[in-house]
Amino acid sequence: MLSEFSLIDRFFARRAGTVRIATDGTLGIGDDCALLAPRSGEMLAISTDMLVEGRHFFPDIDPHALGHKALAVNLSDLAAMGARPQAFTLAFALPQASEEWLAAFSSGLFELAERYDCELIGGDTTAGPLNLCLTVFGSVPPKLALRRDAAQPGDDIWISGALGDARAGLGVLRGEWKADDSDTATFRRALEYPEPRVQLGLALRGIAHAALDLSDGLAGDLLHILERSQMQAQVDVDAVPRSSALRRLAPEIQQRCTLAGGDDYELCFTAPATARAAIELAGSEVNIPVTRIGTIGALESAASSPAISWRDASGNPLTLSLQGFDHFHAD
Amino acid sequence: MLSEFSLIDRFFARRAGTVRIATDGTLGIGDDCALLAPRSGEMLAISTDMLVEGRHFFPDIDPHALGHKALAVNLSDLAAMGARPQAFTLAFALPQASEEWLAAFSSGLFELAERYDCELIGGDTTAGPLNLCLTVFGSVPPKLALRRDAAQPGDDIWISGALGDARAGLGVLRGEWKADDSDTATFRRALEYPEPRVQLGLALRGIAHAALDLSDGLAGDLLHILERSQMQAQVDVDAVPRSSALRRLAPEIQQRCTLAGGDDYELCFTAPATARAAIELAGSEVNIPVTRIGTIGALESAASSPAISWRDASGNPLTLSLQGFDHFHAD
Repeated sequence: MLSEFSLIDRFFARRAGTVRIATDGTLGIGDDCALLAPRSGEMLAISTDMLVEGRHFFPDIDPHALGHKALAVNLSDLAAMGARPQAFTLAFALPQASEEWLAAFSSGLFELAERYDCELIGGDTTAGPLNLCLTVFGSVPPKLALRRDAAQPGDDIWISGALGDARAGLGVLRGEWKADDSDTATFRRALEYPEPRVQLGLALRGIAHAALDLSDGLAGDLLHILERSQMQAQVDVDAVPRSSALRRLAPEIQQRCTLAGGDDYELCFTAPATARAAIELAGSEVNIPVTRIGTIGALESAASSPAISWRDASGNPLTLSLQGFDHFHAD
Repeated sequence: MLSEFSLIDRFFARRAGTVRIATDGTLGIGDDCALLAPRSGEMLAISTDMLVEGRHFFPDIDPHALGHKALAVNLSDLAAMGARPQAFTLAFALPQASEEWLAAFSSGLFELAERYDCELIGGDTTAGPLNLCLTVFGSVPPKLALRRDAAQPGDDIWISGALGDARAGLGVLRGEWKADDSDTATFRRALEYPEPRVQLGLALRGIAHAALDLSDGLAGDLLHILERSQMQAQVDVDAVPRSSALRRLAPEIQQRCTLAGGDDYELCFTAPATARAAIELAGSEVNIPVTRIGTIGALESAASSPAISWRDASGNPLTLSLQGFDHFHAD
């Protein structure tokens, strides 16, 4: 089965990169290890994600979309550090080696990899229940890395793109709500083909303070920044950007999808108010909209906990119930 | 379940390393990425392995042994490159989060990690059929890396330790043959607690030409060196080292276990005859026996294929049938 090495070779090894290891040679797939170095004076940013059928994607997902998404969610972690993609490894278990499935999966994977100049440098394949584990490597000057613990009092809170479409797509597929064909296509594309914000992450080096990518929903993910930075936040719920397709769903669905939906893979970052013009410029240069949605504040006392205060556009406090709003990427 | 983050935190995050990222800070688990750099002037050697229940280990494996083995097989790849272990990431899917299972698994994992000063720097956990994916990082000067394509005509072929015990253990567990309690314990230990030959790999830098670790059996793995180096080999079957426990099994079982058994995780390497004394010294300094088992030769013509000629102690050719001798690590 998967000892049909010719299939693996055809779809993966031949498209894999070779890494220059010395002035006189390169080393590609096929040795015990790959060799990799960050750019001079930089460090490797490393992230690993495991995707399991039924938990991170539906069993009938288009394998092309799966190939794209498996790499996209990992590149999104590099984007959130301000790291430049360099390479990745791919390990996967497959119940059976279908040539058609592997052809589509590898196309989705390599189309994205090639756009970001990110080379496959190693991997492992085995028979087993469908499972994908990717590890990605980017290069970043350590002092410019966008960390989660760097938010400062007075920082603006920013979001790239628009939130909630992926969760809206999941809801349509699950029959939780309905949308017309065109909006459904918009939502499904957001769910299946998330675009990692790599160029924006690079453009925010030296400008943004803290950053992360939104995989589990704004409410939970922003809290990670607050906890690691020991800060609190005020967020204007009405300012959170959403697509025109999402605006056609009921207001309470819009709100829950934008604030507690998962799988957005947009960047959430903080930056001082003095950086507003620089951030608008960075966003327009990479053609990714950026929107201010709130403010970071110091904790009121040593005893208070990091938390988000939700406000409406007039600044009135809102009490939101976002608990138990299940999204796809639940762990 | 696995959103019981406290369990993960208790067993993994608290024992994870922090990585110094600048003169003024460190970055541990909990950000989007870990940051890592090789030693100055070196490169990172990277290897990833996925282990699946039923294919790489029995469902009833002691979780302590599984934690050990999951890291050991990855460290073995670093050893085979002559790389010094530095860090690893761990992604796993678990059908359920049993505190007892996680405690034993993490103990087996971290006991080995600490012996080799190899820090956990990131990971991912999810619910799903049991699956472990580790990626390990070591540091090596690129010109000293022990590659598979570096065997030269006239090189001796060397093996560390003894071969075949792990396959013998698998056979006992499967009921293919019997052994007494003491020999069974020896075989099971080889199968469940392989020892990565990290110190030997480091000691062979600058001495050995080509190297790899034996995961799929000598016959298949040595062929990888031959194919990548475009060489052939003569191997003295009687010289292949085996334990006294293995010598108590029938001769044809001994032969198949040593030549086609998997899961040995010993090093197979080549070196010029002038390096014999240096290799004996390297082995004795790290207290790992090393044994010469054969010789590398040039291909007879451009049309001939890399292959192994098996000989007995008198140099007479042997025709061996090693096809279809199934071992555990089948892919």
